[in-house]
Amino acid sequence: MTPFADSPLAVSLGDPAGVGPEVIAAAWLRRECAELRPFFVAGGRDVLDQVGLTLASAFSVIPIEDPAEAAVAFAHGLPVLGALGGPWRPGEPDTDGSWLAYDSLKWAAAMARGGQASGMVTGPVAKARLSEIGFEYPGQTEFVAAACGVNADNAVMMLAGPSLRTVPLTIHVALADVPGLISTALIVRKARIVAEALNRDFGIAAPRIAIAALNPHAGEEGRMGEEDTTIVAPAIAELREIGIDATGPHPADALFTPRSRQTFDVALCMYHDQALIPIKALNFDEGVNVTLGLPIVRTSPDHGTAFGIAGKGIADPGAMIAAIRMAGEMAHRRAARA
Amino acid sequence: MTPFADSPLAVSLGDPAGVGPEVIAAAWLRRECAELRPFFVAGGRDVLDQVGLTLASAFSVIPIEDPAEAAVAFAHGLPVLGALGGPWRPGEPDTDGSWLAYDSLKWAAAMARGGQASGMVTGPVAKARLSEIGFEYPGQTEFVAAACGVNADNAVMMLAGPSLRTVPLTIHVALADVPGLISTALIVRKARIVAEALNRDFGIAAPRIAIAALNPHAGEEGRMGEEDTTIVAPAIAELREIGIDATGPHPADALFTPRSRQTFDVALCMYHDQALIPIKALNFDEGVNVTLGLPIVRTSPDHGTAFGIAGKGIADPGAMIAAIRMAGEMAHRRAARA
Repeated sequence: MTPFADSPLAVSLGDPAGVGPEVIAAAWLRRECAELRPFFVAGGRDVLDQVGLTLASAFSVIPIEDPAEAAVAFAHGLPVLGALGGPWRPGEPDTDGSWLAYDSLKWAAAMARGGQASGMVTGPVAKARLSEIGFEYPGQTEFVAAACGVNADNAVMMLAGPSLRTVPLTIHVALADVPGLISTALIVRKARIVAEALNRDFGIAAPRIAIAALNPHAGEEGRMGEEDTTIVAPAIAELREIGIDATGPHPADALFTPRSRQTFDVALCMYHDQALIPIKALNFDEGVNVTLGLPIVRTSPDHGTAFGIAGKGIADPGAMIAAIRMAGEMAHRRAARA
Repeated sequence: MTPFADSPLAVSLGDPAGVGPEVIAAAWLRRECAELRPFFVAGGRDVLDQVGLTLASAFSVIPIEDPAEAAVAFAHGLPVLGALGGPWRPGEPDTDGSWLAYDSLKWAAAMARGGQASGMVTGPVAKARLSEIGFEYPGQTEFVAAACGVNADNAVMMLAGPSLRTVPLTIHVALADVPGLISTALIVRKARIVAEALNRDFGIAAPRIAIAALNPHAGEEGRMGEEDTTIVAPAIAELREIGIDATGPHPADALFTPRSRQTFDVALCMYHDQALIPIKALNFDEGVNVTLGLPIVRTSPDHGTAFGIAGKGIADPGAMIAAIRMAGEMAHRRAARA
């Protein structure tokens, strides 16, 4: 893959019945203030045309046949690639919409993988609905990893907001299963991917990785659980031996105070809520989900389809804007190194 | 017990080698801006005299022999009850200091229990140090409960900041033990104590109690753990049947966003970090630990002894001030009802 700084980003539509189309349109409207690099949407022309009719601002869709047309078109309208279409029925998800979401996702990934796009940003989908049409991945992250030929275990999800980045080590599993899934090898493997990606894609020369403890108070020397002593601490020692600036295990409640957040570049957390509670409490409207460890750049706004408010003009485009901006910056750094 | 609105609050010194004495002195200095009701310190006169010598502001200790003298003395100096004393050695905890902390705690509890004080605020202690001198409680909360003749299971810890209140259902246990400790009966029992206390002590007529899920995404109908369906949901149904405005189980990551926080008065959380991560991320400098379900009012600043910075004049008194103010307001509401 050859990423070009000049290539636009590919954005997938997300479920057309959700807030994806309208936050993408809103992001294009704010492209100048938000300093967004050019992007195009992979399909969904009819949907975006109809979204445009509801917008007070000057908005138009510019159909393109080749991503190379996007950069010029971007100044005048939202470039939309190809003819994938269908009606816009906000708040009313259906099978046709699921197929459109899936096709748009596949297409955006192919463009990023092929180098016609410098990276991809995925609009929000409903996993349960996609699984009804045969989408066999737990989420878009796993799909994108597979599309890149990367084992899903090596695609690392990072949540990033203006004042905090976190990585959950385990994700969609019951809390009771978490202690059994944590291992020294897992921590070391994921921390290495994170360290490399923060260096390559975020321009941080020597990333400071704070590793959260599994147990309250980091277990207080085994009085509240042994794992922090027997599993987490050895991983940190191993990481430090290979030159990675890892610290911890840090008691997780103290790790996310304003002062503590200034002492690290990313927090590696043991489970879903430990990583997502602080991100959403602090940065809800601008949270970005980034996939690290892939040959392509991929980000996503950290929110769902929000079917309940779709089409009402009240969805906050902040996270989509942040996701597009971050993908553009990451792609730019990769291109500068290539 | 007869609490009087006019009675002062009793403040225990905390470990004299920690930041307790200096944040108490700082709270007294800011008594007017912070609109603090009168309080006195139970013992520690020598320590506080020496703290005063390091303060640039006008500060003096006023020895009192009876809590009834505190209200008048409070305008002129920090009232300190009795002669319990010892030298001030910030950052150097020792056995004498542990005894002073313990005696001050016992004394403050006795004053609150006896009605000479309208409530108590506890300065920070080091549990490991107190246990060395035979203090057999997991923490001050359990000690205070015992001093009031209340079973520790019925004393509920609540963390309160300016924009969020949380209650951890389980506290100082290994994460692996949490799923086995959660029961429908436990949730119902603690939620009832919380509802009653928010009504009585915080003046909230019909408290809205949001109950956090144990598993990510509330388990997604059992795909990531059964407990939210089999244990938490039935507790919520039971609470609603008895007229308590309980909702959930709420996915914990979405529960603490700014918008979501406006929809409830308190979040009942399943484990330590779930309750403390959002509080500390959002409200670190003003977090208050409140004990609900006691016959007396008891609050505490939500931080430790911080031996490392004690005596340097850099400890933030915000949490101690917030704890004193909250205890005063709670005592005032109780007195108004009595």
